[in-house]
Amino acid sequence: MSGTSLDGIDVAVCRFGSKAELVHFHSTDWRAGIREILMTLATQHEVDFDLFSRTHFLLAQEYARAISETLESAALKARDIRAVGLHGQTVRHLPKPETVVAGLPPVAATFQMGSGSALAALSNIDVVSDFRSADVALGGQGAPLVPMFDYEFLRSDSVDRVILNIGGIANITWLPKNARPDDVIAFDSGPGNMLIDSLAKKYFARGFDKDGEIARSGKIDNTLLEQFLSDPYFKLSPPKSTGRELFSENFLAIVYQKISEGSLRKEDALATVTEFTARSIVESLNLIGATDKRIEVIVSGGGAMNAYLMDRLNEKAPFARIVSSDAFGIPSKAKEAIAFAYFAKAFVEGIVIHLPKTTGATQRVMLGSLSRAM
Amino acid sequence: MSGTSLDGIDVAVCRFGSKAELVHFHSTDWRAGIREILMTLATQHEVDFDLFSRTHFLLAQEYARAISETLESAALKARDIRAVGLHGQTVRHLPKPETVVAGLPPVAATFQMGSGSALAALSNIDVVSDFRSADVALGGQGAPLVPMFDYEFLRSDSVDRVILNIGGIANITWLPKNARPDDVIAFDSGPGNMLIDSLAKKYFARGFDKDGEIARSGKIDNTLLEQFLSDPYFKLSPPKSTGRELFSENFLAIVYQKISEGSLRKEDALATVTEFTARSIVESLNLIGATDKRIEVIVSGGGAMNAYLMDRLNEKAPFARIVSSDAFGIPSKAKEAIAFAYFAKAFVEGIVIHLPKTTGATQRVMLGSLSRAM
Repeated sequence: MSGTSLDGIDVAVCRFGSKAELVHFHSTDWRAGIREILMTLATQHEVDFDLFSRTHFLLAQEYARAISETLESAALKARDIRAVGLHGQTVRHLPKPETVVAGLPPVAATFQMGSGSALAALSNIDVVSDFRSADVALGGQGAPLVPMFDYEFLRSDSVDRVILNIGGIANITWLPKNARPDDVIAFDSGPGNMLIDSLAKKYFARGFDKDGEIARSGKIDNTLLEQFLSDPYFKLSPPKSTGRELFSENFLAIVYQKISEGSLRKEDALATVTEFTARSIVESLNLIGATDKRIEVIVSGGGAMNAYLMDRLNEKAPFARIVSSDAFGIPSKAKEAIAFAYFAKAFVEGIVIHLPKTTGATQRVMLGSLSRAM
Repeated sequence: MSGTSLDGIDVAVCRFGSKAELVHFHSTDWRAGIREILMTLATQHEVDFDLFSRTHFLLAQEYARAISETLESAALKARDIRAVGLHGQTVRHLPKPETVVAGLPPVAATFQMGSGSALAALSNIDVVSDFRSADVALGGQGAPLVPMFDYEFLRSDSVDRVILNIGGIANITWLPKNARPDDVIAFDSGPGNMLIDSLAKKYFARGFDKDGEIARSGKIDNTLLEQFLSDPYFKLSPPKSTGRELFSENFLAIVYQKISEGSLRKEDALATVTEFTARSIVESLNLIGATDKRIEVIVSGGGAMNAYLMDRLNEKAPFARIVSSDAFGIPSKAKEAIAFAYFAKAFVEGIVIHLPKTTGATQRVMLGSLSRAM
């Protein structure tokens, strides 16, 4: 797994039975110079097409290196691995169809770099890659995919569950007990760590608010909080998704202004955006009718480590039992990588994991493409 | 199959047993507007990356349409087809490694457009695509691939064979009797129809010299012929490959000059380049030691229809029995499409067709990536 934040490559060695078991986990940075190229390819309108083509193969070399390091540190051989699930590096995600040629139907697209065929040749392990294209070709958003993992391993016969991932954006998978594929609902609840991290960085020179201690020391500005919560996004019915645009500049401009004019203390700002994050999650539980039940909320992502945020969530969602995904053998930081490892297993075994209702695709498909090693 | 000449999409419905059987063949043009985009993507240094991404999916729609038309005209259903072999549209082929990031190994690349995953979703047929990447990742030229088909279906226990394809460039597959994979040699012999077509177009306003009649009416200029044959390319040991650059401007400049100054008649120019084409093929047979044996030459490509060229080849290669690939159930125009259909069959059945000695790859690999239909 390598995400759009460009922080490197995560490799999860997994074993799948009735449970998902993480055997080994390894993270590695992109080597110097690659991040800059990926940033250029992902953000520029016109790109050097030779550079793109060669980088598609260069990433395969990088993924092969990450796998080789992982196998060495886990004392495993390539032949011990049935298949690699390769997400690849997203450089374009354009799920909204647009006309390319007048007179032909509008067309959507997604592109993840890092050649699966090259990786299979270089690693000598079967590789399943390109998990989003088939969904996009059938009118889906090509996302989210992780709920398809949640459905397989985290649904319960006896309890309604919400799987909550708090990354930059927070997203939710609703798994009512005994859920069938069409019962699963997945959507972005709103901000995750994004607002908190931005303020921690700007005003406290920290990458994030460790354990939520700064926010805990502040006081919630209720007027600002209600203003935040009045955003129309929170009234939209799921499925819905959002990005950095909405929950960043729009919301922080007023905070910056209030702090600069002295009408808001910096720690109060953090307390308020942390409360906003917790409340927007609870609003989302309300939207799916989860607030009048005894539910379990299984939390992953960096936000699960923010003790104050977890306290606020517990306070505002008394109907929920909030537990970390670690309790299910799925460490937060490894969850996405584990999910794509599972998607590779599913492909090679012919198991259909696609949940078209969560992405908007018109029908179920097999996600992924298999490149075989010798 | 869709080639770099951008003349459209060929679909071959095949059945493979001990022989390759063509069940149905269908060709369709690209729809208006697509050829222009592909030309732009293939030739411009910087490309609109959104346009590239969407066109990758638009081509999948076009391939799906071509398949749908084919099935209809053949009275077949998607479920009658085991798998589609999708070559895709080559927009970059960069088999020579170059440095992308200082300090990292130089990297080669190839890219064929038309998402295999999208095509599987749209056609509801398994698709095998991306046949060149694994070879390029292992140091190969990513070409030629068709000799791997020749090896499977055209080698003989009793006779040494040369498979000769006369397209723009002419290429040769050498299949000594009872050939083992490492015995196969494949290379470009030199010009195919390229020089002939250029002169027919420039001086006779024809797309090509039908049946070689213009050339037959002319007289060979032996001085010019020997000058052509002295090109160092014909002394190089195979494997070797060439492109439009060498056998176009370089050779025609002197012809244009002689015609304009009146020292060469137009039909004599055609006779001479036709003779040159035949002789360069015979020189190639000499290079691989095929001239002192009784061999069979199986000809395909547009040049096989040039009766005068075939006559000259027969005259200059009396040791060879020259036959058309049609006699083996492989119509010239369908051969490449049939080859990629076979490569798809090979992938889904786990048959390794790769001949690394013909491409220069460091080891054998599985060529292709499988996207599954439901």
